[in-house]
Amino acid sequence: MAKKIVIIGAVALGPKVACRLRRLDPQAQITLVDRDDRISYGGCGIPYYVGGDINDLEDLYRTSAHAIRDESFFLDIKGVEVLTKVEAIEIDRHNKKVKIKDLKTNQEDYLHYDKLVMATGAGAIRPPFPGANLPGVFTLSNLQDAEQIKSLMTQGKVGNAVVVGAGAIGLEITEALTDLWGIETTLIEMEDQVLSTLLGKCIARAVATELKSRGVNLLLSERVMEITGKGESVTLEVRTSTEVLSTDIVILAAGVRPNTKLAENAGIAFGRSGGILVDRRMRTNDPDIYAGGDCVELRNLVSGENTLMALGSLANRQGRVIATNIHGGNSHFVGTVGTFCVKVFDFGVCKAGLTYRQAKETGYDPVYSVVAQPDHAHFYPNSEFIYVSLLADRRSRKILGIEACGKHGDSVKSRVDTVAVMLGKGVYVDEICSLETGYAPPFASAMDVINNAGNSLDNILAGSNRPIDAADFLFEFPAGTRRVIDIRGEREAEPFLEKFGSNWLNIPQNELRERYTEIPADEPFYIICDTGARSYETQVFLSSKGIVDTLHVQGGYAMIKVTDPEF
Amino acid sequence: MAKKIVIIGAVALGPKVACRLRRLDPQAQITLVDRDDRISYGGCGIPYYVGGDINDLEDLYRTSAHAIRDESFFLDIKGVEVLTKVEAIEIDRHNKKVKIKDLKTNQEDYLHYDKLVMATGAGAIRPPFPGANLPGVFTLSNLQDAEQIKSLMTQGKVGNAVVVGAGAIGLEITEALTDLWGIETTLIEMEDQVLSTLLGKCIARAVATELKSRGVNLLLSERVMEITGKGESVTLEVRTSTEVLSTDIVILAAGVRPNTKLAENAGIAFGRSGGILVDRRMRTNDPDIYAGGDCVELRNLVSGENTLMALGSLANRQGRVIATNIHGGNSHFVGTVGTFCVKVFDFGVCKAGLTYRQAKETGYDPVYSVVAQPDHAHFYPNSEFIYVSLLADRRSRKILGIEACGKHGDSVKSRVDTVAVMLGKGVYVDEICSLETGYAPPFASAMDVINNAGNSLDNILAGSNRPIDAADFLFEFPAGTRRVIDIRGEREAEPFLEKFGSNWLNIPQNELRERYTEIPADEPFYIICDTGARSYETQVFLSSKGIVDTLHVQGGYAMIKVTDPEF
Repeated sequence: MAKKIVIIGAVALGPKVACRLRRLDPQAQITLVDRDDRISYGGCGIPYYVGGDINDLEDLYRTSAHAIRDESFFLDIKGVEVLTKVEAIEIDRHNKKVKIKDLKTNQEDYLHYDKLVMATGAGAIRPPFPGANLPGVFTLSNLQDAEQIKSLMTQGKVGNAVVVGAGAIGLEITEALTDLWGIETTLIEMEDQVLSTLLGKCIARAVATELKSRGVNLLLSERVMEITGKGESVTLEVRTSTEVLSTDIVILAAGVRPNTKLAENAGIAFGRSGGILVDRRMRTNDPDIYAGGDCVELRNLVSGENTLMALGSLANRQGRVIATNIHGGNSHFVGTVGTFCVKVFDFGVCKAGLTYRQAKETGYDPVYSVVAQPDHAHFYPNSEFIYVSLLADRRSRKILGIEACGKHGDSVKSRVDTVAVMLGKGVYVDEICSLETGYAPPFASAMDVINNAGNSLDNILAGSNRPIDAADFLFEFPAGTRRVIDIRGEREAEPFLEKFGSNWLNIPQNELRERYTEIPADEPFYIICDTGARSYETQVFLSSKGIVDTLHVQGGYAMIKVTDPEF
Repeated sequence: MAKKIVIIGAVALGPKVACRLRRLDPQAQITLVDRDDRISYGGCGIPYYVGGDINDLEDLYRTSAHAIRDESFFLDIKGVEVLTKVEAIEIDRHNKKVKIKDLKTNQEDYLHYDKLVMATGAGAIRPPFPGANLPGVFTLSNLQDAEQIKSLMTQGKVGNAVVVGAGAIGLEITEALTDLWGIETTLIEMEDQVLSTLLGKCIARAVATELKSRGVNLLLSERVMEITGKGESVTLEVRTSTEVLSTDIVILAAGVRPNTKLAENAGIAFGRSGGILVDRRMRTNDPDIYAGGDCVELRNLVSGENTLMALGSLANRQGRVIATNIHGGNSHFVGTVGTFCVKVFDFGVCKAGLTYRQAKETGYDPVYSVVAQPDHAHFYPNSEFIYVSLLADRRSRKILGIEACGKHGDSVKSRVDTVAVMLGKGVYVDEICSLETGYAPPFASAMDVINNAGNSLDNILAGSNRPIDAADFLFEFPAGTRRVIDIRGEREAEPFLEKFGSNWLNIPQNELRERYTEIPADEPFYIICDTGARSYETQVFLSSKGIVDTLHVQGGYAMIKVTDPEF
């Protein structure tokens, strides 16, 4: 007899399970149920639709062969039934049936299942401050929101905007508003950095610099207290912890929460993060019920803790695993290392693994290198800097995470991905030093930035490289406890000599072997060069001459410049 | 007492050893010896200098901080002595000294060493046909060659050129001549494909198409028999196995051979490939003599056999390992997986691991998938196709290699590198299906091309995906033993219906569930769609209806088009 499969949720994971299962089992009776009438869309494309990179909303639910993914597409081409505007309201696990309600007619019915798949996704969080539900205050959780926002903009009703939350969605929508529509945008974040769950302070500062250079009014360590409005109008007032902003529109990008109520009511186990608990086969505590996508918790393979990781890519890969297993196969989804990327104006920003803070919390003894280097051979035209931060555990030398940003997004992603794919199995500093990625001058340096990030970490762990990062340098230098030795050329050093006087010494590296005696051996110094390679070399040299209390600035002036262009 | 280190060869590996060692040991007495007077240059940049991407030859030996890497640079900044125009002519292992000869004065002398490093590199092979040494016939092994070639071109003396050998250097120099100088270039290769030691036929065909579309006269399976010339003139005649070509210049790119004579004469062991044998610490059979770079054999970590792999990137990474070990550390260079990339006009071409042919020779039972997919989300603007071929062992499901090409080079490299870095440790098909690379629409699809390459391979191994690649299809279809079912739209299929008549059936996929009865169940068919995803789905569907003798074309029409645009 044909197997009955019911899948609740028809975006990303749901359709993937259905289509893969159909290919594995031509007989199975597969039914997708969704509350919405728009299904199987690329939700991750919403900011690009709002921004105008994508003109037509339908592009988000069109296949690469130009077919619209609607009910008849799934029926005619995929052989899968989809019930839209139908809500699953109760799961009767004992009798293996789902009570559904047609939202158009309010009629209720039952769907029997042999296997049930929970693909209920996640919903945008509306923070609990007053005014979060006013007209003109949006989240970005579905296509309806996207359409409303874009419609306001095309009508010319939005001159300025406030985005709440500097996570990935917050940054994407900030770019969309600012870059293409020229809207004056304020981005409010309660943490002291952007992307606070994804990045450490070094790369986060570079991203913040990119945002500010594009005219975004970035307010960090700032809380929204209240939004007030005038009813019909789209003009709102946002009161934060320090100021009051008038704005035409507010977009809440304060994160998402798994939609698990239906599962909870049916006694499906969920975890500390609020996501449904699944095993490696993506089964819940009921072996006939699978779950995947944004509504489940995943094991973070670096920290060992369960986390939420709402990403269409993970959902799709899990969908394939679920279908294989429903068909009697044995496929595993072992977890995530938190690989992530986001485009922020001209910057590609990528990471995998843990941040410094997360590594500390997990109980590691983290240490990191920061490297700034052109992505292609420095003599090849069109190179752009990549800024990399590589994190390891001091005791075990195990790599815990990597973060990077730069103007060639694909190039940045390339470096992070090569470390990301190894994180789950365990990869160590020495392996990064010799990591065998492709080399040719149009694509990389002979000693690639990723190898150098490993080399730096190796030298730091050996004690020969004693670094300070650019953010810490910028914070500590004004205190005046250490002077700077700038080993760049005179031309590069001159503005800093003028600005900082005797606190800034300039001895070009090629004169150092003659002139090091000018440096008082008992005084503490920072050492600065262009990118951090020569300042490390100088640190080693000076140490051999008895000048030992030095910190060299990792990533050099290149890193200082993207951390604070005003310095 | 200061350790004495002598390094023979001052390009890539040699300087890397010297500089790293200096940082580890401020006291060591480090001497670099080189026959040439130009040292520490980026030899891999030569084609880009010839082509004009790099204007100034000095850029190839300038640091990113604009210092010229000459003797005084090494002395003043690095604290390393370099003897240029000095040849090492004999190694006296017993007394641990090297006999050197000053090529300017012909004076001989000795350098004593505690540790010796052989960084003698490789030299271009001049094939043994008559005329290979004529004026106007060049190799590309050093800066002098590069200067001579460029000088002829800037003088307008080169209207057409013949390049012998379609390996990486051959392709790079072909691009350099054709693209920037508009020189009519013939590329002659004796194998039946380009990059024959690096690529299988599928990706090689796509690269050949790119070459031809740029006007390169590509002659495969063709041998040069003789070159004749007229003394002073640069006009030459190249007689091949099938024709006679008049040309102004011939560039031999027939590979390189390790420079090992000096080592051989000293009784240093070398391997079957002709390279010096080293252990994981890069020590030769003499524990006081290290070797690295283009003159050594490396373990191929996929095949288990030793191979030559002349790459500046490997040399630099090995250099660091050697310096660490000379300093008493314990650093390993375990081998190579043959990661490689090359730019060919608008195409980035990357590979790692074994080709199909090499896997067969190694004794594996290889099977491969071919996938064509946009590098970014298909709804995001500016996506370009990536063409990927993923190779695994049928029995063990172990990944043996990956090859890819496409117009966004960094994007292509990103996919290949993620598999490359795992090849040495062992990675299996199922891991590629769920490989966790970064996802956001500007960078990747939710189910990325690399995951889909794994998924396809998984389906092939499960027997549900029965493929033929585009090259085989193009070879076999004209025989008329199978007709085509084209499931694309009518508009796409029309030209083929006209061309191939009843051998080409068109049933658009969305009509297939109604119309499959039109297909004779006992007849063999090829199935074709745009990219190979839907043809696989159709194959599965037709099989469930009893139409079982089908082969679907992997990569679909996208792959056919880059394999033979004339089809």
